Amino acid sequence: MNVAFIGLGNMGRPMARNLLAAGFALRAWNRTPGKAPEGAVEMGTPREAARFAQVVVTMLADDAAVEAVTLGESGLKSGLRKGGIHVGMSTISTQLSARLADAHRAAGQSFVAAPVFGRPDAAEKKLLWILPGGDDAAIAECTPLFAALGQGTFPIGTAPQASLAKLTGNFILASLIETFGEAFALAEKGSVDTPKLAETLATVLFANAPIPKGYATRIAATQFVPAGFSLPLGLKDVKLALQAGEELRVPMPLGSLVRDHLLAALAKGREGFDWGGMASVIREAAGLPPVRK
Amino acid sequence: MNVAFIGLGNMGRPMARNLLAAGFALRAWNRTPGKAPEGAVEMGTPREAARFAQVVVTMLADDAAVEAVTLGESGLKSGLRKGGIHVGMSTISTQLSARLADAHRAAGQSFVAAPVFGRPDAAEKKLLWILPGGDDAAIAECTPLFAALGQGTFPIGTAPQASLAKLTGNFILASLIETFGEAFALAEKGSVDTPKLAETLATVLFANAPIPKGYATRIAATQFVPAGFSLPLGLKDVKLALQAGEELRVPMPLGSLVRDHLLAALAKGREGFDWGGMASVIREAAGLPPVRK
Amino acid sequence: MNVAFIGLGNMGRPMARNLLAAGFALRAWNRTPGKAPEGAVEMGTPREAARFAQVVVTMLADDAAVEAVTLGESGLKSGLRKGGIHVGMSTISTQLSARLADAHRAAGQSFVAAPVFGRPDAAEKKLLWILPGGDDAAIAECTPLFAALGQGTFPIGTAPQASLAKLTGNFILASLIETFGEAFALAEKGSVDTPKLAETLATVLFANAPIPKGYATRIAATQFVPAGFSLPLGLKDVKLALQAGEELRVPMPLGSLVRDHLLAALAKGREGFDWGGMASVIREAAGLPPVRK
Amino acid sequence: MNVAFIGLGNMGRPMARNLLAAGFALRAWNRTPGKAPEGAVEMGTPREAARFAQVVVTMLADDAAVEAVTLGESGLKSGLRKGGIHVGMSTISTQLSARLADAHRAAGQSFVAAPVFGRPDAAEKKLLWILPGGDDAAIAECTPLFAALGQGTFPIGTAPQASLAKLTGNFILASLIETFGEAFALAEKGSVDTPKLAETLATVLFANAPIPKGYATRIAATQFVPAGFSLPLGLKDVKLALQAGEELRVPMPLGSLVRDHLLAALAKGREGFDWGGMASVIREAAGLPPVRK
Repeated sequence: MNVAFIGLGNMGRPMARNLLAAGFALRAWNRTPGKAPEGAVEMGTPREAARFAQVVVTMLADDAAVEAVTLGESGLKSGLRKGGIHVGMSTISTQLSARLADAHRAAGQSFVAAPVFGRPDAAEKKLLWILPGGDDAAIAECTPLFAALGQGTFPIGTAPQASLAKLTGNFILASLIETFGEAFALAEKGSVDTPKLAETLATVLFANAPIPKGYATRIAATQFVPAGFSLPLGLKDVKLALQAGEELRVPMPLGSLVRDHLLAALAKGREGFDWGGMASVIREAAGLPPVRK
Repeated sequence: MNVAFIGLGNMGRPMARNLLAAGFALRAWNRTPGKAPEGAVEMGTPREAARFAQVVVTMLADDAAVEAVTLGESGLKSGLRKGGIHVGMSTISTQLSARLADAHRAAGQSFVAAPVFGRPDAAEKKLLWILPGGDDAAIAECTPLFAALGQGTFPIGTAPQASLAKLTGNFILASLIETFGEAFALAEKGSVDTPKLAETLATVLFANAPIPKGYATRIAATQFVPAGFSLPLGLKDVKLALQAGEELRVPMPLGSLVRDHLLAALAKGREGFDWGGMASVIREAAGLPPVRK
Repeated sequence: MNVAFIGLGNMGRPMARNLLAAGFALRAWNRTPGKAPEGAVEMGTPREAARFAQVVVTMLADDAAVEAVTLGESGLKSGLRKGGIHVGMSTISTQLSARLADAHRAAGQSFVAAPVFGRPDAAEKKLLWILPGGDDAAIAECTPLFAALGQGTFPIGTAPQASLAKLTGNFILASLIETFGEAFALAEKGSVDTPKLAETLATVLFANAPIPKGYATRIAATQFVPAGFSLPLGLKDVKLALQAGEELRVPMPLGSLVRDHLLAALAKGREGFDWGGMASVIREAAGLPPVRK
Repeated sequence: MNVAFIGLGNMGRPMARNLLAAGFALRAWNRTPGKAPEGAVEMGTPREAARFAQVVVTMLADDAAVEAVTLGESGLKSGLRKGGIHVGMSTISTQLSARLADAHRAAGQSFVAAPVFGRPDAAEKKLLWILPGGDDAAIAECTPLFAALGQGTFPIGTAPQASLAKLTGNFILASLIETFGEAFALAEKGSVDTPKLAETLATVLFANAPIPKGYATRIAATQFVPAGFSLPLGLKDVKLALQAGEELRVPMPLGSLVRDHLLAALAKGREGFDWGGMASVIREAAGLPPVRK
């Protein structure tokens, strides 16, 4: 299968490599050139990259990048043939997801929103979780591609529904940060051994599931750098969830609380923190130093 | 070992049975008589139950009950010998925990706060998690007793610290309810198949750990009865966490949010709901019916 | 002075009439034609209306309308002469305010943001309060115009600062609604005579100032229709304030709370309510009917 | 009329002086002796002070003080004759207000809760506002007494209803602080001249009513000392309002927000601030210094 891969950042590069390793022919494009892995053919524009592809994968930072690369001048939509599939794996707004689905449909193409859970190291180890949304036939056609990228695929409805599902998941993670932030600030001011408490509660409440255990451990230890997922990116995603709530008329007070705490962390100049570092703001409101001494 | 067991409710009865099965000699007391399991000797007052015991276990509803049974007239403290241990397994305030530790110490006795995680069915199957706090020697003496009641023991410092740890854990569960409540209200208004989403996110984010998976599943399905842990009890525990935060000067805005939603559920007459039913209030604010049709 | 007046809605029409009464020559434009008051010359486009004017006033619903009418095809900027002044009296985002200032400056023109406080009846009676922001000379030139429209003028800095000041004022009003909503729900459930309490507190705390007294009285009486300022418009303004907070990195948790309550009121289908009707959502969370029986 | 006056602090002393000036015969009691104004007879216990009185006034810090002085050993209830009236002018919980009403009724006496709005300087100038609640006859009997203390009297129902009305009023003031705190943090980060904005909005929105104008001015200027009404006292009253909400099942999310901000200010060691200094916490979350430089 001929695949075009657009966006060769921290996530995109290892994913592209895994596709090559699985035998896919790859044309690639990245805003900053020279990032294509060995074995991929680097092209001059998204349109050219898309020209010979059955499937174009995009893995980009935000709505603006996905929109520009898809619908802009020299965008992939104008290069992709009829019947071609655009698999958008970025976390984007439900609105853009719906617009892309419409635009591709009008061009006789398909759009599959296929956001992923997992960080760069998971991308490298083919341990991503993929939540594709779109036409059943298009999703089916992408099965081997998804198999080369992740450990599991959960189809979730239409493209905007898949995008919404991803936003929901990120909202849950952000809420977990708020939760642990408040819990361990309380425990620390009660002179409890919080790293031990974090381990205990990770066992008792979460059966040592790695994601909650990791957040609990890092927040109890106030280990906020390096950023696995940066604070500004976290705010972006929480804002997308709130925006979806606004369109669908769903008040999300916990979402608002998380947004306000992320914003406060940025107001204090903590762009370089992991989004778990939002807990620093909760600590300060309790009279604790942002990071344990 | 001679043990006195005070409080034979939904939790206490199966725990008492497990102690008998493990070979402990048991004197028991309950406010409403006639609840003692076969093999236990029912006594007329907490004081009489405590008289021949090395260890007195209390498993009661709230601060008031524990205080009355311990320090009141005919209370266990006045019956327990010097060197005896009171193991308080209820979820109580850190203040009461500290006061009981002081009172027993003054009487030459020990207080071990040993709150548990687990519902009646876990109590029956010896699957409780126990977080004891108090003097090391006293905790060590209780090791065989804890082994007869639960699947794991995590010592957590002093008695009030163990009580605080338990409140922290219940706060985390309450926050999980809020989180799932908002997440699935959003998804449902976006016409996503929320039970499927719940299962997906339980896998992806929580590695199918039973507790978050259970809450996610029930909240997505709006299955709020029968109550595994009732709404009024949930509010009681969240209030104890907020009260601890007040004493330690730790603002807990998520705790306040959860309290307000639990209170709203009670204002609407939903005392019979599981505390997960707090999500009904979140649903209504989004224009959804409290329970799916 | 030759004035062009763009936007002849509930606010714009009485304002245009007052300008005519004060002797200004008026060319006018409105999206739906036929709205110009007697004495004004109705023009076919904003550009034509602006052509002979020293000052163009815009009084429109939202950012999109102001932007289209100013910068769009046949927009007023392309008609206005060098040295001309655009007085934007709508409540708009600080971002748009800054962009309009830049665009007019680049064209050798001036932009004065001059948002107003007051409803249509205040507009009619020349009782508006005007907060102009922009170049001192341009504001000075508009003095007679402002005098014909309102009871007082408070220059407040640059154009985006004046827009921000207005958003701040509307945020304060929205917060007052939340405040009274919670206060009177509490009092009503305590069987207090809330209309009497509203009158008492308006006297005691607010020296019977008409605005807080009006909100207190209407909220205590749950008089939510007719809408003096509609719920959807209220949500729009609160969102603009939150958006300004996001850009300036200012968490506004009360702003978020108000937004969530306004959103909940819309989720329940209350578009026709005054924004004071947000209190209906607070009432329901307390188990009260949205409107008193 | 023979009056006993209990509690000669910052509020009580000037009130007692005004009663003397109006011709009332005064017996007084204060925990720390030697505080009685000239002309009053200082007694050894509340009971003795109450013995010859028709009316006993209490003006004390909190629930505990009022309860001890009324119902404790040597308390005023045991000294007051049948038909005597206890006028409780402190801000107390609705629960205590109800209990005092019951206790006095059982003793053939009357309890009038008569909380006041106004600070020590208003007490001195007879400018208090008084909100009495209780039996009509008892309130009528106190009319001359109220006239000697304040500028206006608003009867508000039963004793606990009057106490609730006062808590409602203080909640409104606390909310005003939160409101101005967020508003002026936003404006300041937008480089607006906030003192000027405060004055403008005080005029435009509040017709220069002294209370909102005072808060707006002080918060814009970050003038948080000296404390007119101290932060810890503010927290006490907000907690009483939340507690009333809990009993009546009224969620008050703005009340919770204010509580959390007051708590954060105390966590940061700002006991000496006026409760308006709660705004310092809002400022810090926006990356501003707690007090303007």
